This record gives sequence, C-alpha cells and structure tokens, in this order.
Amino acid sequence: MRNIKLTLAYDGTSFAGFQVQPNARTVQGELMSALATVLGEKVHMIGAGRTDTGVHARGQVVSFKTNGSIPTDRLPMALNSILPAAIVVWQAENVPLNFHARYDATEKTYRYLIHLGRVPSPFIKDYSWHTSRELNVPAMQQAAAKLVGRHDFSAFCAAGSAVRSKVRTIRHLNVEAVEDLVLVETAADGFLYKMVRSIVGTLVEVGRGALTAEEVQDILLTGDRSRVGPTAPPQGLILWHVSYGPEATLEQTPGSIGLTLPWGYVKISL
Amino acid sequence: MRNIKLTLAYDGTSFAGFQVQPNARTVQGELMSALATVLGEKVHMIGAGRTDTGVHARGQVVSFKTNGSIPTDRLPMALNSILPAAIVVWQAENVPLNFHARYDATEKTYRYLIHLGRVPSPFIKDYSWHTSRELNVPAMQQAAAKLVGRHDFSAFCAAGSAVRSKVRTIRHLNVEAVEDLVLVETAADGFLYKMVRSIVGTLVEVGRGALTAEEVQDILLTGDRSRVGPTAPPQGLILWHVSYGPEATLEQTPGSIGLTLPWGYVKISL
Repeated sequence: MRNIKLTLAYDGTSFAGFQVQPNARTVQGELMSALATVLGEKVHMIGAGRTDTGVHARGQVVSFKTNGSIPTDRLPMALNSILPAAIVVWQAENVPLNFHARYDATEKTYRYLIHLGRVPSPFIKDYSWHTSRELNVPAMQQAAAKLVGRHDFSAFCAAGSAVRSKVRTIRHLNVEAVEDLVLVETAADGFLYKMVRSIVGTLVEVGRGALTAEEVQDILLTGDRSRVGPTAPPQGLILWHVSYGPEATLEQTPGSIGLTLPWGYVKISL
Repeated sequence: MRNIKLTLAYDGTSFAGFQVQPNARTVQGELMSALATVLGEKVHMIGAGRTDTGVHARGQVVSFKTNGSIPTDRLPMALNSILPAAIVVWQAENVPLNFHARYDATEKTYRYLIHLGRVPSPFIKDYSWHTSRELNVPAMQQAAAKLVGRHDFSAFCAAGSAVRSKVRTIRHLNVEAVEDLVLVETAADGFLYKMVRSIVGTLVEVGRGALTAEEVQDILLTGDRSRVGPTAPPQGLILWHVSYGPEATLEQTPGSIGLTLPWGYVKISL
C-alpha cells in the first residue's frame, strides 16, 4: 500500500470547480476517472483545497492510497495521456501513509490577475478580471498591509462556510503593477470561503477610491461583511502553491511546471 | 462616404480562420455580421492578410467603405458589445478613400511561441507549440540569419498558393529563449502561404540537430521544399502587426491593445 501525492495544474474555465459532484464535470471527477483507468481501482482522494467554478490551479495537491502496481514516477505521463488537456499532472511523489493533502498543508499561495486594458484581451479574458477603471496601486498596497498577520477574517468570508474559527494568518499580500496588469499574491496558513476574491474585490474598491486603507482595517476589526467590496470574479484567481512540512516528503522527486503564463512571466526583449 | 480602417485582436482557436466562407464560423464573418448590425448595411471588407484556423492576431487590419452614420471613434465599443469575446476591435481610423488594407501593407510582423516544458501547460496549449525536446537556440539563431534579406522563398511556401513571385524580403527573424519558452519574431514585406510556420518548423529541426544552418541556406537557394521541416502547428502563431506608409493615415487616432499575453510580456517581481 502506497500513499501518493500528485501536484496538478488546470484551467478551471470548463469545469464546475475542483470537487467531485454528481452530474457535473469537475477536475477531481476527471482525475479520479483517469486514476481508475490507470490503477484498476477506485481511490479515495483528498484534495488540498476546493477551487470554485472558473478558478484555476498551478499547484493543486491531492493524495490517495493505492495497491496499484504502476511505478509512481510513471503516473504523470500515464494520467496526462488520458486526462483532458485542461488538466496536467506534473509531479507524483510517494509520501508517508499518514500524509493528508488537506490537513497537513502548512501554507497556501494564491495569485490574482487584474487587467486594466482600455479594451479586454481575447487572450487573457479567462485568466484575469478586466476593468477599464484606473486603480491607485499605492493605495491598494497600503490597504493590503493592514490585512497581513493573524486576524479574524469573518468580514472576508462568504456565506455558506461552516468553519468554527475564522482566524487565519496572512503571511504576505503583495500588489504589483506592470504595464496594464495588476498582480496580487497572497499566502496564508489557510483561507476562508472566497476569502481571496473578497480581499481582491475590496482592494479594487480601495484602488478606485471608494474605500481607504483605514476603512479596510476597520472592516477587518469589526467583521462587518456588508462593507467589503464585491467578490472578485473567479477567472482571475489561481491556486499557485501548497506547502507541506519536511516530514511530508519520503524522497525528493523531480517535477516542475515551468513558467505559468499569464500569472508568472518574464521579460522577452525581442 | 468614409473609408474606415479597423485594427483587431482575436483568439483563433474556435474559428475556421479569418476569411469569410459559407457554412463556417470565421473571424471576418463575425465582424461583417457585427458591422451590418451597427451600420445598417452590408460592407465589402478587405483584410490585410488571411490567417489559418487556430492562428491568432493581435493587429489584424481590415478596411471597408460605408455611408453609415456612427462616428468612427465609437465603432470599437459598438462592435465589441456585439462580437464574441474572442474578437476585440481596438482601433478605428478614417483613412483616405483609396486606402486598401491588403495592397497598401508595407510590412507584416508575426510572432511564434514554442513551449519547451517537461509537461504541457493547460494555460498556453492553445497559444504555443509544446515540445519536450531540447532545442539548440544559438544554432536556430544562426540558421535564422541565413533567411534574412531578399530571397526566393519557394521552399518555404506550402502547396496551394497561386502567387506569381515567391521573392520576399525578410527584414528580421529573431529567436529568443527565456525560461522554458522560445519566441520567434519575423517581419517581411509579405509572407507566402504558411511561410512563417514552415520557417519555424525548419528552425526547430535545426534546434534539435536534424539540420544545420548551412543546409537551411542550401534549401533556400535550391528551393527544395522536400527538405524543409514539418510546418509548425497553427496555435503558436500570431499576426502581430501590419505596417502602412504615412499616407495611409488621415488623422492620428488613439487606440492600443496593451500587453498581449502570452506572446508579449514583462517581468513581475513578486
């Protein structure tokens, strides 16, 4: 019996979110179906986190136990040959039998892309939030700084969540602008339901002058959800990375996704 | 009567190419249909160049004459509100009555993106040619240099072309690698049928060691199409820019598409 950890990237556009559900095409459903073909058995799969319809992932993590015979390092190629092209498994690792993709996660990182183009782009419409408003990025950075640290994020949690504590620790929340893009990156020990999109929606309200950094701090302290900005649309969001402690690794295995356009990119000087 | 020049970007994935044809969804067909709605008349439209199924555009140009009453500067917003999201008109200009989008073009620029990732990317699969081969980029650059200038490009022209002369002048043909991407940019006074994809396919053969720069020069001089590389797949190609002389402009009009991911991007340092 092995416990296997898979790391995968997906374009969430055409899926009803990550989590398996009856009568809907989900990422987890596609992955479990491909695994059943490759392993010859149905597995119980644990995902590091759910992503909503339209939300993407670069580094989603799942774990499952199997008695299947395929060598772990052959799993990515075997699965990718079956999976739709919108889902790519880019790393497979043997992990200790008690590894749990959700409970053992120590940190999650998300990125969110905002596109300020005068016109929308046909190429990043499914991967960004387009707005032709101008945004005051320094003001957004000031407001973001108020949210970093250990706080009760009740104001930034959408209805429908049943978690007991809404205290989380945001390790960083960076806002950077270049040309007509604004990229937000945030890492925390965990995120509440729609928390990143709620934060981004609020930062955009700050960027357009409808809220101040002080008001954002006040919203955080009072937990008044009625004052946060509209939840940012899903297609700008990507689950970038999930971290685990060193005890989660049995052996160092190769695997990389390389550059993940459009959220991570570098200069080409042609 | 006005003669109007439109500049448009499109994601070619879901279209049967640019040029209008019966019983197929084409970019030009969608644009003519949207124009008929906005202008109240059917126009005769001239495109700067055809793009094949799956090929994209950042700066395709069309021209048409109209007696319609809508101010030219309102055309982009009016058309974009009707067009599918995969097509965006980002500039509209009044041009002299004798302006012709195809005959008056002085230079066209194309970009082609190659993705060398160990695994394919769900985010750029429709915008790049994925190959897990390693490529010798300096060798590709040497071969590219042999093709720059005024030559008979018969060897790089796919069958099905009826043009008289296959002499063209390539003004530049640059190959640049960064991380797991190779970007090719080329500009010429005109390109033959599938010429850019034929050149890229040949440069990739050079990159993997199957052809030398000297052999590419020999292929060019002999016109022996049997020796060129396989035509590169369409989805990596984008019509980047079409240039016209100063006499093609009646008045300077604003309009920009901004950053066009994934072929044009800059560093974000988060």
